[in-house]
Amino acid sequence: MELLKQKIRENAILLDGDIVKVDMFLNHQLDTALLYEIGGEFRRLFPSKTITKILTAEASGIAIAAIAGLHFGVPVVFAKKYNPKNICADAYVADVFSYTKGTSTQIRVAKEYLSPDDHILILDDFLANGQALKGLLHIAEQSGAVLEGIGIAVEKGFQEGGKFLREQGYPLKSLAIIDAIRDGEIIFRE
Amino acid sequence: MELLKQKIRENAILLDGDIVKVDMFLNHQLDTALLYEIGGEFRRLFPSKTITKILTAEASGIAIAAIAGLHFGVPVVFAKKYNPKNICADAYVADVFSYTKGTSTQIRVAKEYLSPDDHILILDDFLANGQALKGLLHIAEQSGAVLEGIGIAVEKGFQEGGKFLREQGYPLKSLAIIDAIRDGEIIFRE
Repeated sequence: MELLKQKIRENAILLDGDIVKVDMFLNHQLDTALLYEIGGEFRRLFPSKTITKILTAEASGIAIAAIAGLHFGVPVVFAKKYNPKNICADAYVADVFSYTKGTSTQIRVAKEYLSPDDHILILDDFLANGQALKGLLHIAEQSGAVLEGIGIAVEKGFQEGGKFLREQGYPLKSLAIIDAIRDGEIIFRE
Repeated sequence: MELLKQKIRENAILLDGDIVKVDMFLNHQLDTALLYEIGGEFRRLFPSKTITKILTAEASGIAIAAIAGLHFGVPVVFAKKYNPKNICADAYVADVFSYTKGTSTQIRVAKEYLSPDDHILILDDFLANGQALKGLLHIAEQSGAVLEGIGIAVEKGFQEGGKFLREQGYPLKSLAIIDAIRDGEIIFRE
């Protein structure tokens, strides 16, 4: 998606350790007009008319998924990561391992919001090592819902998440794939 | 806002201790069509053309604020509550006291995203004792931005937050104010 790549080129801040900071439009401040275009692009990439729900994870996936929900005309369910006790005990649960922290946390979705009748599209803002996404996939599997696709805004193609999921045959599409950061320049996959 | 009240009447679950659970459309599953109408209602209630930014707090305010941002045509900034170390040290910080937990947590907004040039509208999903909102107001004050208004989707009018803020003269408007829960029925303020 050219508009997103352009925004990353112009506004992302590169930090040590191949960190791409997109706080100013995706992750702390939200460029709502851009998010609307991103939602429209996901709709074009996943034109299935049978999608019933969008699934994402708290907190950074919420804005993208909510606005995409307008394009798809379906509800969004976000997995709870914080204060999970606020949701009923009857939930699908998945562990998400964090390499940065070296520990696992749990994400949860109340069972009443996903069922085998659902056809779901998983959306998230970022894909790097893929641990968060694997947690969402584990929740989707437990629910028995049909997976229609996985849409990511920004994929760090030099980390293993995307490669692993494509090799496993998951229907993964990313709007911008960063293949490398070389001399302060971002190289996108064609 | 009649549509929101109707949704609350039909779908909210009442729990012990005057807890109104709106998980199925506002807080875990998101009714995106309803959120779009809520955003439009905020635009009608706050018609000012000088608003430059919407401010909310992670995580539950993000969906409402992001979709409202489309109606206002402005960016959204959400205060970080979780993993705040991910944002730069140069931030506006406010303490938010939680009555349920008996402890304070911090919320943060990087200084680069709010300045005295901004005219901000604060939006949130819920207002009860008002502690989270006071934190957002404290951040807004530190930034020197002009406060254009405060919009809330669901206010629990029998808790003190809304009363306090109105007495202080804040431009607070709530789309649905629950004045009481009597014999399992929700009484809205006219």
